[in-house]
Amino acid sequence: MIKFSSLISKLTDSQRILIVGHIMPDGDDISSVVSLTLGLQQLGKSVLGAIDDKIPPEYLVFPGVKDLIDYEKFLDLKFSPDVVVVLDCSSPDRVGRFVKILPEHTIVVIDHHATNGFFGDINWVDSTYAATAQMVFHLNKVLGIEYNEELATINFVGLATDSGFFRYSNTTSNLLKDAAELVEMGAKPHFVASTILENKTLNQFLLLSKMIDKIKVEKGLAYSVLTFEDYLSCGCTDQDSSGFVSEIRSLKNVEVAVLVMEYPKNRVHVSLRSKNYVDVSKIAATLGGGGHARAAGCSFENADPWQVLKEVLTLVREAMGG
Amino acid sequence: MIKFSSLISKLTDSQRILIVGHIMPDGDDISSVVSLTLGLQQLGKSVLGAIDDKIPPEYLVFPGVKDLIDYEKFLDLKFSPDVVVVLDCSSPDRVGRFVKILPEHTIVVIDHHATNGFFGDINWVDSTYAATAQMVFHLNKVLGIEYNEELATINFVGLATDSGFFRYSNTTSNLLKDAAELVEMGAKPHFVASTILENKTLNQFLLLSKMIDKIKVEKGLAYSVLTFEDYLSCGCTDQDSSGFVSEIRSLKNVEVAVLVMEYPKNRVHVSLRSKNYVDVSKIAATLGGGGHARAAGCSFENADPWQVLKEVLTLVREAMGG
Repeated sequence: MIKFSSLISKLTDSQRILIVGHIMPDGDDISSVVSLTLGLQQLGKSVLGAIDDKIPPEYLVFPGVKDLIDYEKFLDLKFSPDVVVVLDCSSPDRVGRFVKILPEHTIVVIDHHATNGFFGDINWVDSTYAATAQMVFHLNKVLGIEYNEELATINFVGLATDSGFFRYSNTTSNLLKDAAELVEMGAKPHFVASTILENKTLNQFLLLSKMIDKIKVEKGLAYSVLTFEDYLSCGCTDQDSSGFVSEIRSLKNVEVAVLVMEYPKNRVHVSLRSKNYVDVSKIAATLGGGGHARAAGCSFENADPWQVLKEVLTLVREAMGG
Repeated sequence: MIKFSSLISKLTDSQRILIVGHIMPDGDDISSVVSLTLGLQQLGKSVLGAIDDKIPPEYLVFPGVKDLIDYEKFLDLKFSPDVVVVLDCSSPDRVGRFVKILPEHTIVVIDHHATNGFFGDINWVDSTYAATAQMVFHLNKVLGIEYNEELATINFVGLATDSGFFRYSNTTSNLLKDAAELVEMGAKPHFVASTILENKTLNQFLLLSKMIDKIKVEKGLAYSVLTFEDYLSCGCTDQDSSGFVSEIRSLKNVEVAVLVMEYPKNRVHVSLRSKNYVDVSKIAATLGGGGHARAAGCSFENADPWQVLKEVLTLVREAMGG
């Protein structure tokens, strides 16, 4: 616990603090940055929370999210931090343009990714946590931060989203206990779930329908393709098909799910999911991608989606022993 | 707590116990019956768990579920119980053919439905519980039952399913604490979620695609129709569209979701869901149905689905002040 106590000293001794999350922000990232920002502000410090990317609109209704700044806004403010806290990033390139200022500052890294490269001066990295927001919750408690309904709700967001609303294998007893404590403090699970999950567009549904109509199933394997024309005809972008591959995995008796997505024209991304035993990260790595054993992906430029599908299926069938 | 102590005495004093759940069993029902059966068997009693209906196949892999008996099997066994415990049923007609034997026995009712009619000799009814399985968990603990991985997992099933995997408004701090305790005892949230939720058939997906293609949206309201021909062409029955109305509700800015389902020919069921303020149970009641404020339904014999849709939409638009 030496690292943790040096982290506490560093935060306590600093007066001007910049807290940075990652680009392509998800619920855990947003929740972590905002919860620590609100926490440290409570200690009377000058604190800015920053994410150098567009915040998905469904998160903007949660407390504190609208106050997040990007890199330009940060430069405008001429804010000179005593310390930069980087949250939920396994490597420095994840912070977007903030990467430019990292070398000039003392960096604290707080992250739950097993792949974290310890690029901070102080690193609190612990992959037994289901979410970085869960680490922030513990940190805030050690710092004596008082939780009200607003802080509890935004902090709950990270615990819920990074565990797939308590359905993934990282749903431990400790995660559920922390979630219970946040609910006791005022977090509203139904409000969080409804705000994040019940925000689909009709166009997204039409795209899903296109994906479903093209699903093919063969023993233990299911796959589909979305071409650039599909996206165009539904008025969608690649952001709209986020999570679609999980729908394919939800098919009975399917071990591996593959979704090939072309957006824009000739840029092809492949999402791979497995249920129990196939390590899809190995398949993705063979194709220059990466990820986890149960969720991985890879991308291709100047490619044809059907050709990519063919190559991926060959590798998946091999991995499945067929 | 007088009722609770008389419940404990009754169970402790009885040697031959029949535990009955409801027809059209859901996760909470199955979880409750099996968990109490396994619990009381541990006390050396002769206990049978019964549900007089088909068990949805995805539940059969959970511990103890295959041992559930129906009414015919019960008659075959010539089992004469000292007490009948009825779980998760708001009225006696919910037990299927077991209703015939209720008058001859001492009945204990354990239920979390606010609409429960207290039809037992001893009634433990408490709608502050999110699930009847949560009541069974507390009861088993009072009875000193020891939890292993199997019992923890099947008991967890009810807590998870009746709260929509911790997303509905009944997700309290106590529910999450109990879930955490069951996980500590060996329950596997990911296994439970994956087993129950990742068991869709391709035919179900094709039916979903048909529903999506027919969704219509108008300010705050979204609806769709599945005709008998749709079910036939996808090789589906009405069981396959269970939960589809929630997909419609997941649309952004939609307050009320309506799904009209015709199965079989000219038998029409309407599912109504709302997000925040429209009481759909009132609409359902006007049409001879019932339910809760946010989830209700009604059924029609010898009806045309499009005509039914028209009538329902008129009522919904009225309720929405339009």
